[in-house]
Amino acid sequence: MKNIARTARLLAINSAALIAANAAASPVPSPTPTAVELAQQGKDLGWWIVEDLTTEIGPRQAATEAEAAARNWAVRRLKEMGFQNVREERFAMPTWVRGDEAASLIGPFHPQKLAIAALGNSASTGPKGIEGEIVYFAGFDALQAAPDTLVKGKIVFIDHKMAPTQDGSGYGYYGRGRFTGPNVAAKKGAIAIVIRSIGTDDHRNPHTGVTNFEAGVKPIPAAALSNPDADQLVRQWERTQAMRQLGDRGDRRQSLRMKLLLTPRDLGQQRSGNVIAEVPGSDPAASPIIIACHLDSWDLGTGAIDDAAGCGIITAAAKYVMMTGQPRRSIRILWAGAEEVGVFGGKAYFDAHGKAKHAVALESDFGADRVWRIDFKLPDSAKSLADQLAAAVAPFGVVRGRQPAAGGADIGALVAAGVPAIDLAQDGTRYFDLHHTPDDTLDKIDPVQLRQNVVVWTAVLAILANSGDAELP
Amino acid sequence: MKNIARTARLLAINSAALIAANAAASPVPSPTPTAVELAQQGKDLGWWIVEDLTTEIGPRQAATEAEAAARNWAVRRLKEMGFQNVREERFAMPTWVRGDEAASLIGPFHPQKLAIAALGNSASTGPKGIEGEIVYFAGFDALQAAPDTLVKGKIVFIDHKMAPTQDGSGYGYYGRGRFTGPNVAAKKGAIAIVIRSIGTDDHRNPHTGVTNFEAGVKPIPAAALSNPDADQLVRQWERTQAMRQLGDRGDRRQSLRMKLLLTPRDLGQQRSGNVIAEVPGSDPAASPIIIACHLDSWDLGTGAIDDAAGCGIITAAAKYVMMTGQPRRSIRILWAGAEEVGVFGGKAYFDAHGKAKHAVALESDFGADRVWRIDFKLPDSAKSLADQLAAAVAPFGVVRGRQPAAGGADIGALVAAGVPAIDLAQDGTRYFDLHHTPDDTLDKIDPVQLRQNVVVWTAVLAILANSGDAELP
Repeated sequence: MKNIARTARLLAINSAALIAANAAASPVPSPTPTAVELAQQGKDLGWWIVEDLTTEIGPRQAATEAEAAARNWAVRRLKEMGFQNVREERFAMPTWVRGDEAASLIGPFHPQKLAIAALGNSASTGPKGIEGEIVYFAGFDALQAAPDTLVKGKIVFIDHKMAPTQDGSGYGYYGRGRFTGPNVAAKKGAIAIVIRSIGTDDHRNPHTGVTNFEAGVKPIPAAALSNPDADQLVRQWERTQAMRQLGDRGDRRQSLRMKLLLTPRDLGQQRSGNVIAEVPGSDPAASPIIIACHLDSWDLGTGAIDDAAGCGIITAAAKYVMMTGQPRRSIRILWAGAEEVGVFGGKAYFDAHGKAKHAVALESDFGADRVWRIDFKLPDSAKSLADQLAAAVAPFGVVRGRQPAAGGADIGALVAAGVPAIDLAQDGTRYFDLHHTPDDTLDKIDPVQLRQNVVVWTAVLAILANSGDAELP
Repeated sequence: MKNIARTARLLAINSAALIAANAAASPVPSPTPTAVELAQQGKDLGWWIVEDLTTEIGPRQAATEAEAAARNWAVRRLKEMGFQNVREERFAMPTWVRGDEAASLIGPFHPQKLAIAALGNSASTGPKGIEGEIVYFAGFDALQAAPDTLVKGKIVFIDHKMAPTQDGSGYGYYGRGRFTGPNVAAKKGAIAIVIRSIGTDDHRNPHTGVTNFEAGVKPIPAAALSNPDADQLVRQWERTQAMRQLGDRGDRRQSLRMKLLLTPRDLGQQRSGNVIAEVPGSDPAASPIIIACHLDSWDLGTGAIDDAAGCGIITAAAKYVMMTGQPRRSIRILWAGAEEVGVFGGKAYFDAHGKAKHAVALESDFGADRVWRIDFKLPDSAKSLADQLAAAVAPFGVVRGRQPAAGGADIGALVAAGVPAIDLAQDGTRYFDLHHTPDDTLDKIDPVQLRQNVVVWTAVLAILANSGDAELP
């Protein structure tokens, strides 16, 4: 069995290479398949893009050597797949990198190590680390409401476990502990902050992610604990509180204390870049469709669901549309750099191209589970186009939403500037189990759901790329 | 809600303390509950033992300060619970401790870090680490069959993913990669060995565990990769093989290479110990029942399922039997030290007490999921006793097995010497998801299943402790 499986996988690798190189010629035996039929027959092009990137490059944090290696890989592969105008568009950005990291609960109980990860833009504790008393907050709001005197000189802990939702709607609310908790704690005089990971799993893999300090606020060391480690901290906190209430007179009547070591570094301005490729349209006057994902990832995992999957999905769909005849509009593929650490790639794209017309913008950046909803933010002229799109994806289990499309991070500036948007919303129920953790690896991707994504994207893209100027700008 | 939940938890802590301290007096309002009824009403004594140990002590590797702290905790708690003859029985043992550990795949693809954990008794690579070419083996048998020339000077990798089973029966087979793989690789001249974790999960938490080198074989560095990291290594291995087959002429026509750093240390003879407590029987001439768990754990997690749970289960059951009247036979509770690293506690117990008579031995050391089967290894005189026991546990979903009881590690020497044994086999379907990983933490324990264990143990122990001399030796 093992040998058969391996042979099959080797053949599949070779097939993928073949498709990538020669697909423009005659990739499938059937006489005249539609793009959607091609995607359904599926040579798993989406999967192989994801596997290739996560296997050969792995983690690829913005503005590091690994991201540069990913861009080289991307340019090579996009050319091999037959796309046109494949290019890098470079930009510089401030760059923060992780150092050593360790944390322990050191009293009043037996010392215990915790699984921890620095947040992007965290300050360093210095190589010797720091020790301090922990002050507990049930959530971000409690921290914000606390008097400075309660926080000053202490290590803040923010609790508040995130619950999973299909549409990921809890991220904004629970995420505040990470997005702005460190800034609030710093302003109140905390010496450091550790937060419960913004995540829905129960594994000892902390969820990293970027935090930001306001101008004028001195950054403090900031890190996330895995959920089991946060549970442990909370149990020890509750015991210390109970011992105080019970009037424990022993030497255990201490406060809860932590030792924390984080040695990240700011590298100043470093080079990142976007990779762009196109399916040229037949009508040079028609404005292009832009489809986006991001090429960078956090450093802890291989960025399979965040966001190699998005790149695999949009690119496979564009390829299938291209393989079935030249569309009227150009399709522009944006593999953005430096999304995770502040959407620098999306901003750079907007700075360079934001004044040019774009017919509509779409992004895939929410994992690899199935598309379950389609949302629109289109001009009134596109009413029947939206109906047509909703009908086209319904056979694949996608329902029409009742809220406007939001776009995505890398197309955010375009959408804010008025470019129409469509969201192909993915099922995010387990997305925050994996998001920004070491566990974001290829094995977490369900190939069947990944393919559904490619099929749905292909259906949508085939219609959009042939839409008329009366429908989209 | 949060406040209510916290108040409830604090009350529960206090209740547990109360029960522990005063239960012998009048713990429950009902007039004359049986021991099983007590366990079913459950004040969650089993849970609180597990929570207390994992929260206040956490990881407790054999012969370290943490294990000594756990013994102090154990003696205090066992006395508080009202057990008699509570004592430490110390012994010395060779002690290995983890150092720094890091591994990377360094070519022919972009360098990537791997999640790795040294195996107990691994040699050190020295502080600078080593680099070498990887040689792949599909499993232990393939390594054993390989010519030395294939292995010499290389870093061996053993694949072979373990599949879950309810009775844990795959451990012996798949476990060989860890138990003796390093010894075989060392004899064939490998410079190091990395194995796929002996585990059934897909998280980036490697499964540690002990390995042993034969006398005369020089130990080599030996470590386990998490399953996703092993998957990644295999994908890169397959790609390098495919590139060779395809005659890739580029600079990527290299072999797969790894950099490995492991700096564990041997500390020589250090002190460990067993903790023993008793429920004294009414008949001083009757031989005791011995029930065992182990107090030590691996260092990566807090040892909740391995084996705080076992200690909670057997001890709560003994407590419930004690609370409902003095049994005829003594019940001896053995919280063994140093099980993980070579069953030194079990051996020390046997050396000290193996010549004395024991009526029957039982151990709980397979997690906290429900008991699903009861197995016997009893003298012919105990046929009706076995029937009675099987009938007593059947209401709790426990079936009678058709194989002899095997005992457990810490009672293994006793059972080998002829002491009768009973196994209360736990459901191990998810045990090897967690076994020896950082993820062995309290949140993984299902309180409902833990309580079922306590109820089943209580039912069995109440019968055994009152059995006659005609039934058991």
